[in-house]
Amino acid sequence: MTGFRELWDQLAPIGRAPASGGYLRYAWEPAELACREWFRAQADARDMPVEEDGNGNLIAWREGEGPAVLTGSHFDSVPHGGAYDGPLGIVSAFLALDRLPAGSRTRIGVAAFAEEEGARFGVPCLGSRLLAGVLDPDRAAALTDRSGVTLAEALGRTPIGRTDLLDRVGCFVELHVEQGRALAVPVGVGSTIWPHGRWRMDFTGEGNHAGTTRMGDRRDPMLTYAYTVLAANKEARLRGAHATVGRVAVEPNATNAVPRLVRGWLDARADRSETLEGLVEGIHKRATERAARDGTEVTLTEESVTPEVAFDGGLVQRLAELLDAPVLPTGAGHDAGVLSAYVPTAMLFVRNPTGVSHSPAEAATDADCVAGIDALAQVLDDLA
Amino acid sequence: MTGFRELWDQLAPIGRAPASGGYLRYAWEPAELACREWFRAQADARDMPVEEDGNGNLIAWREGEGPAVLTGSHFDSVPHGGAYDGPLGIVSAFLALDRLPAGSRTRIGVAAFAEEEGARFGVPCLGSRLLAGVLDPDRAAALTDRSGVTLAEALGRTPIGRTDLLDRVGCFVELHVEQGRALAVPVGVGSTIWPHGRWRMDFTGEGNHAGTTRMGDRRDPMLTYAYTVLAANKEARLRGAHATVGRVAVEPNATNAVPRLVRGWLDARADRSETLEGLVEGIHKRATERAARDGTEVTLTEESVTPEVAFDGGLVQRLAELLDAPVLPTGAGHDAGVLSAYVPTAMLFVRNPTGVSHSPAEAATDADCVAGIDALAQVLDDLA
Repeated sequence: MTGFRELWDQLAPIGRAPASGGYLRYAWEPAELACREWFRAQADARDMPVEEDGNGNLIAWREGEGPAVLTGSHFDSVPHGGAYDGPLGIVSAFLALDRLPAGSRTRIGVAAFAEEEGARFGVPCLGSRLLAGVLDPDRAAALTDRSGVTLAEALGRTPIGRTDLLDRVGCFVELHVEQGRALAVPVGVGSTIWPHGRWRMDFTGEGNHAGTTRMGDRRDPMLTYAYTVLAANKEARLRGAHATVGRVAVEPNATNAVPRLVRGWLDARADRSETLEGLVEGIHKRATERAARDGTEVTLTEESVTPEVAFDGGLVQRLAELLDAPVLPTGAGHDAGVLSAYVPTAMLFVRNPTGVSHSPAEAATDADCVAGIDALAQVLDDLA
Repeated sequence: MTGFRELWDQLAPIGRAPASGGYLRYAWEPAELACREWFRAQADARDMPVEEDGNGNLIAWREGEGPAVLTGSHFDSVPHGGAYDGPLGIVSAFLALDRLPAGSRTRIGVAAFAEEEGARFGVPCLGSRLLAGVLDPDRAAALTDRSGVTLAEALGRTPIGRTDLLDRVGCFVELHVEQGRALAVPVGVGSTIWPHGRWRMDFTGEGNHAGTTRMGDRRDPMLTYAYTVLAANKEARLRGAHATVGRVAVEPNATNAVPRLVRGWLDARADRSETLEGLVEGIHKRATERAARDGTEVTLTEESVTPEVAFDGGLVQRLAELLDAPVLPTGAGHDAGVLSAYVPTAMLFVRNPTGVSHSPAEAATDADCVAGIDALAQVLDDLA
């Protein structure tokens, strides 16, 4: 039986940036395509035919009766992301299958979903949203990456959207590395995903010369941006919510020029939708007040908002009892969150010793990963 | 006699970005090279041989006795910069020569200096610094642009540094668009350039997941950066100085990741060196205090500092009296500031109606530009 470390070491070099040690695996770019080749080889080695669903998602099938039990995760990463976020769920799926007795009757699928992070085309859970029919295929086809390449060009076709795939699935279980420090034991069961979203904030002012423009004559959008970053942090803390500004673009982005445009992206999450709405309103209000003072303008554009996801109550309870595992919520979005509206869905989380994720420092011990594989095998055996 | 508008319209389309209306003329890239071709054509039309000084600077000579009177400016722009900053001084130089009586005995040179803005290789006044011998040619040769191209590759050689060129020059007068709102008449004479410099600020923290990392567990360098941007503004206002953060780079720069690194560039200027030093120290102190609170680290690296430049007192007075023009300081660096340490140097400023510069909105009226050409012609006639 193949061990965790053996499979893990096969994936480890793919798309790893030497300087940071983090991963650059963007959907349909060479590193992520190499991961897909690895996926097909793993499926071949297990005599599992691979279905490509017309939306860029891959599913390797172990034959049996339907409706199927689906498991899996994604290969793509944020820029300089960690090794575990995504791939752990796919590696664990194949290795859990290897642990199952030969005789299970139910069909089991291992999925690799496309563009979960949204790092290339800006829409997270792109593949699962298309599969579920909640993202219009024509709208998706026209999405562009930072180089102007469309999704249709990257995929080689217009995605086909909702198919009968989910009709053939009875339940979905995604194993994922935990992304905070909430787990004191190796494995837990997910209960809910916090409501969360992304907003683009455009701060516009007057481009000008950094040396000659008097401070009082400036309309500097960098000041409004900076104030808003600090205000977002304060507003989130006051509400027990999360707010992050981790991406920014400046025009002209020159040392000796007052910018004319600063564009920042707000990532906001909270345990309840009302709290999230209040948080974003509060940040917008403070940004607008400061803009008046700076002589600048600010606009807030919603890019994506995902309401609270509660995983299937019966399935969550069944898995928690089976594994004697704690139940915990998460602030992170997942393909499981998208699919939970269409099929009974649950998640398994593997302990993260430092809570660091979306970073080269993301980690999980081999022992905890193996515990996750064993737990997933128990779950598949129970469900299949 | 060729008019201002005719020559100006020849240059106007070169390197202009259709969307912003600003210019992308970076040293030795196609648009700036096209400006150099235009320069050679103008020199040819006036039977002026062109000297390339081995550092990327061009000088067109009108024959006569030495030491020469040198005038001119630069073609390169900041990203999406204005039309006037630089090119106005070169266009005016050729047109002023056309206005001179045929009989002046002194040699006159029209210069186009390379990489004045530092927008490609990061060192402003690169060409004049090399020419003056204040920048080591080997160090300059190894400078890289944002694509990793070295200066030596762009120039096609290692620059040769100081030559006998300045020994052949008796004085230098640079005409330039004014970059604030300090001129109430069409033309003024420069007195001093404020001490100024650029510092790189590296804010480092811990990259992490924006959804799952509790606010209290974060070490987010974007917060320290934002606080420092606001602190720089306050410290500059308190001192009657200028501070700008107009350029920023973030790693990994992803919407759903707390950054691990935010790098910002500080542009700071003041009327006295002591004030400038106090300003930068004050900003550094406040950044360091905030970093302790955020669990981040900040380092400040000086990239270039230019002490106060006082133009040649006798020359300034002579020009002011000749033109009956006001005398004014500027916060902007210029090749004239570099060369003033080696040859008697002065500047003429042409009125800027809005004070906007380093922006597509930079402007000067045709009438004021023609007044500038007439003034430069008077000056050359007087000096030659």
